[in-house]
Amino acid sequence: MNRSIFTSFNKYLFIGAHPDDIEIWSGGIILRILHENKNAKVHCVVLTDGSAGYGTIEERYEEARNASKMLGVSSYEFMGFKDGSLHLNVNLPNVIANLIRKYKPEMLITHPIQDRHPDHAAVGFSTTKALFLAMVSPEFLEYEPHLCKNVIRFVSDPFQSPKSKLYIDISEVYEKKKEVILNFKSQLGVLVPYLQLNELYGRINNCTAAELFEPEVLSF
Amino acid sequence: MNRSIFTSFNKYLFIGAHPDDIEIWSGGIILRILHENKNAKVHCVVLTDGSAGYGTIEERYEEARNASKMLGVSSYEFMGFKDGSLHLNVNLPNVIANLIRKYKPEMLITHPIQDRHPDHAAVGFSTTKALFLAMVSPEFLEYEPHLCKNVIRFVSDPFQSPKSKLYIDISEVYEKKKEVILNFKSQLGVLVPYLQLNELYGRINNCTAAELFEPEVLSF
Amino acid sequence: MNRSIFTSFNKYLFIGAHPDDIEIWSGGIILRILHENKNAKVHCVVLTDGSAGYGTIEERYEEARNASKMLGVSSYEFMGFKDGSLHLNVNLPNVIANLIRKYKPEMLITHPIQDRHPDHAAVGFSTTKALFLAMVSPEFLEYEPHLCKNVIRFVSDPFQSPKSKLYIDISEVYEKKKEVILNFKSQLGVLVPYLQLNELYGRINNCTAAELFEPEVLSF
Amino acid sequence: MNRSIFTSFNKYLFIGAHPDDIEIWSGGIILRILHENKNAKVHCVVLTDGSAGYGTIEERYEEARNASKMLGVSSYEFMGFKDGSLHLNVNLPNVIANLIRKYKPEMLITHPIQDRHPDHAAVGFSTTKALFLAMVSPEFLEYEPHLCKNVIRFVSDPFQSPKSKLYIDISEVYEKKKEVILNFKSQLGVLVPYLQLNELYGRINNCTAAELFEPEVLSF
Amino acid sequence: MNRSIFTSFNKYLFIGAHPDDIEIWSGGIILRILHENKNAKVHCVVLTDGSAGYGTIEERYEEARNASKMLGVSSYEFMGFKDGSLHLNVNLPNVIANLIRKYKPEMLITHPIQDRHPDHAAVGFSTTKALFLAMVSPEFLEYEPHLCKNVIRFVSDPFQSPKSKLYIDISEVYEKKKEVILNFKSQLGVLVPYLQLNELYGRINNCTAAELFEPEVLSF
Amino acid sequence: MNRSIFTSFNKYLFIGAHPDDIEIWSGGIILRILHENKNAKVHCVVLTDGSAGYGTIEERYEEARNASKMLGVSSYEFMGFKDGSLHLNVNLPNVIANLIRKYKPEMLITHPIQDRHPDHAAVGFSTTKALFLAMVSPEFLEYEPHLCKNVIRFVSDPFQSPKSKLYIDISEVYEKKKEVILNFKSQLGVLVPYLQLNELYGRINNCTAAELFEPEVLSF
Repeated sequence: MNRSIFTSFNKYLFIGAHPDDIEIWSGGIILRILHENKNAKVHCVVLTDGSAGYGTIEERYEEARNASKMLGVSSYEFMGFKDGSLHLNVNLPNVIANLIRKYKPEMLITHPIQDRHPDHAAVGFSTTKALFLAMVSPEFLEYEPHLCKNVIRFVSDPFQSPKSKLYIDISEVYEKKKEVILNFKSQLGVLVPYLQLNELYGRINNCTAAELFEPEVLSF
Repeated sequence: MNRSIFTSFNKYLFIGAHPDDIEIWSGGIILRILHENKNAKVHCVVLTDGSAGYGTIEERYEEARNASKMLGVSSYEFMGFKDGSLHLNVNLPNVIANLIRKYKPEMLITHPIQDRHPDHAAVGFSTTKALFLAMVSPEFLEYEPHLCKNVIRFVSDPFQSPKSKLYIDISEVYEKKKEVILNFKSQLGVLVPYLQLNELYGRINNCTAAELFEPEVLSF
Repeated sequence: MNRSIFTSFNKYLFIGAHPDDIEIWSGGIILRILHENKNAKVHCVVLTDGSAGYGTIEERYEEARNASKMLGVSSYEFMGFKDGSLHLNVNLPNVIANLIRKYKPEMLITHPIQDRHPDHAAVGFSTTKALFLAMVSPEFLEYEPHLCKNVIRFVSDPFQSPKSKLYIDISEVYEKKKEVILNFKSQLGVLVPYLQLNELYGRINNCTAAELFEPEVLSF
Repeated sequence: MNRSIFTSFNKYLFIGAHPDDIEIWSGGIILRILHENKNAKVHCVVLTDGSAGYGTIEERYEEARNASKMLGVSSYEFMGFKDGSLHLNVNLPNVIANLIRKYKPEMLITHPIQDRHPDHAAVGFSTTKALFLAMVSPEFLEYEPHLCKNVIRFVSDPFQSPKSKLYIDISEVYEKKKEVILNFKSQLGVLVPYLQLNELYGRINNCTAAELFEPEVLSF
Repeated sequence: MNRSIFTSFNKYLFIGAHPDDIEIWSGGIILRILHENKNAKVHCVVLTDGSAGYGTIEERYEEARNASKMLGVSSYEFMGFKDGSLHLNVNLPNVIANLIRKYKPEMLITHPIQDRHPDHAAVGFSTTKALFLAMVSPEFLEYEPHLCKNVIRFVSDPFQSPKSKLYIDISEVYEKKKEVILNFKSQLGVLVPYLQLNELYGRINNCTAAELFEPEVLSF
Repeated sequence: MNRSIFTSFNKYLFIGAHPDDIEIWSGGIILRILHENKNAKVHCVVLTDGSAGYGTIEERYEEARNASKMLGVSSYEFMGFKDGSLHLNVNLPNVIANLIRKYKPEMLITHPIQDRHPDHAAVGFSTTKALFLAMVSPEFLEYEPHLCKNVIRFVSDPFQSPKSKLYIDISEVYEKKKEVILNFKSQLGVLVPYLQLNELYGRINNCTAAELFEPEVLSF
């Protein structure tokens, strides 16, 4: 029974709004999970096609597919919603509830509730509803009900520091994370400052690099 | 490196305002730590003499001493401040900073920042300052600086639900926790409702009983 | 002019998301109103069909109808929306505004703005808009405008304690409330912990049992 | 049992930081209490000497004494702390706890917790602690413990609108309130805008004038 | 480079929910901009037809057109959405993003995020999303991307005081502003109290009259 | 009258807790003020002796004195309180109120109200009280009353992003600011990450470097 709730689960679900969100804000914890726990299944779902930023849809999907191979995740699903449109989608809580019921993760990792990017905020806000809907039995959902007892959130808006902080020491996998990120050639200008933040969080914790998350609910 | 941040540390410090605070809000996690990790040192410090409630100071100290033996903690220190007076003590952040420097815990467990009880709130609020002061070098502190990288807070005010939640499953040690609590004969009327809350938290998590904490900072 | 704003109004409107919400969080105040004020009209509206929890729609409607008779309310209306779907309904503020204009209550009692259950939150959040819309004259609403000057909210999410608190002493009607609740046979596992909270609130107020509400606006 | 919690209590305690605070923010409710309830005892305590504003201490005390006679309150006590110094007084929670224990009010009316005036904020913030201390038994307090079950707060900072609102219709006593306020000759420039706010609150409530309060806890 | 960020920009965009919102909450700053900066373009957009309040749509449009001439603004556009319906319009962030891209303002002035009027709140809340969408490249928007680096918000809900305050001294243009407001004959009962607030804000700032705004982002 | 409220005032007061706080969080705006406004008086006050970090008191004072010469400020005062002790000093609001009355600034720039460093938080929190006390007439203060109508706050805690943001473009003075900072030899490890944040804020604003502040009150 004595195990880490961060790396010892059997099933993880990462949900990102865009093709590089999962990698930049949680690439390090994914690498630690897969290095420390050979039984872990890490599932990734990307909701939009990334069409509102730099690069074409095809380039972004290709970059994400390459990154997923470098990370070694178990599955990587594209939902194909239009980039920038998630805030228009009132059905999004149901979409996410179905993902939770489909993958039945022990731990869910996704965007925070408040975020300056409307797509991120839509995912974060809808996930709160989705977690509840996934465990009850509304007629309109698919799959069997599932209670996910561990949820942590990305710090995907640098101006929304979490009140509760979870630092994941990624010093040992930081070189590998940087390789993964360099793979997102169309997005490098946007992504590099977040690697600098990994180093800043590391300095605060007396280590080389760290990822910061907001723990929402943990059950040990 | 694959270990739980909740039960696998070598040194823990629990700080309570009154002689039964540590036991009622964290007795279960103490029992789990000591059952699952034979190397753990669990240090407890009680700041006031409990003189503002039921029972005499002597009775309350005796109850707490008995409880500490039943739990099996490594040390149990009484600071002897007057019950109800902590909000008057502008020096309290320094008192707590010195405790952090003295015991050098890897994890600190204490009252939350907002709490209807003025003593609890004084401890919780002062601890935020103390954690910072403990790691720098002001002239007026004792011992060597220490950075405590894991801090969780009691839910000692039932009307202040934490935004981030950490549930500790105490099902396997719940009978033992109840025995420990029954030992506080002078306080039973006050304490029993909190055992009911342990059962309510358990029901939410599909287990017999759980303790609820607010994670403030975790480093893994 | 010297009268209680809690039990002396002529018209009350209670809005609940599911067939047992009104009874569990406000059954006691309904009993007090009807016992202390023979002229009071108490209208209840249930928005969803309760199909996402235990029991069939028919069972839940039957339980609610029986409860309404035991309480002795003036009317009990089912709107029949799908359980779990209220967060999808962008028209909900208009639905509730029309209910306020139809029943013209002096006091409205419903769910709070923040609530972990998406249906509750949808009702609570939409009610704030509905109260404003009901008193102005948008083209798309029915009935005459109405300004409701007293609004109190259920504490239907035990993790969202209200900052402002209204305790209603239900000691004298508590046995009757328990009978009403026992009538919801399909939901007992969910409901019983809330009766325990009634007793906990009572203990805080030196009485047998109390219901807790959040006053939003009161006018005396 | 059917009575108003706002005007039917036997004992009220109003605490103001300065010699005109009670009158300007609650003169109307005092007039209503004393008009509607012949048994009510209304006690007023003013903490500072008013020396930091316009007028001398003697003028301000004289104005307050005259106002108290016009209102017809039962007692009016001056504590004589230096105006502007309450934020320096770490003992203030105990001072207020002793007042609560001395007067044993069923309802307490005082400044809010957040207020741009440091004296107001000191009173408001300390009252939260004082309410708790007054009901337990710390060694350093006088009188017998007392639980005050109804607390409402002034809106003494116009930039801190309360989330929960209590409007008291003072239309019938508004002319009298204005007479009382006109008595504070040294402070008229400061006070008149607040009478305008009484009229604005009235307009929102379809009456001539209203006072606005924040209900903190009510027990009915 | 030494210029005021409040009156020296070349292009301003004011967005109001109803035909008098821009004038009552920002008529003074418009007059100052146009008096102090002969090159300024001030564009106004009114989203709804004002049909839920007093007066007909035609009267309200006529009043607004007259006001716009008195102010001397560069353009004044009516979008014609139904009054009271903006909270139903999930597409509103895109509507506002298109306005930002069309007018390309250096400063945007509109409703705040929290506001008791559902239309105001819908505009305020959607503007936060719109500002982000306007600067990226989602497929479904028109015009070229634009980053608006200065945003200030009306205080259109008197019960939502901004934490950060921007006072604009309108003493020299206050007589003119009153003339503009008196032009809204159908709405005078609603508008006059806000002129009183202009005078109250002036008193706080040692001037005749002031408008209050919440600065959201300023770049100098 | 058309002038910038950020660089065109005659008198500025910067208050920092430690010998490098003013320079690192506001060195750029000081350089812009002094470059753009030859009449500006910039006064700096440092409250503590810096004895709790790296370097001796003498070294830190020397570094600060050199920096003040490089910046070209009008005065630079050391108050000499013990580093780390400001949270113990209940008199701090009066100390700061006296500074405001002594220097009579049109704009005050200091630490924010919430900050993980107890000294910063003590300064920030006390300044709110001090601003009020400085404009009234309590007996215990020196100098004549002063109303400071413009206040902006450092972002001295990187985990407390301000809700309202003021970006100051420091691109043209950034090389000079870096020279000033490099002068604080004993503190470089702590200071360099904040220069990185200046660059990150610049990137968000399409410029080389920017300082971020929280506007509290501005009056134009």
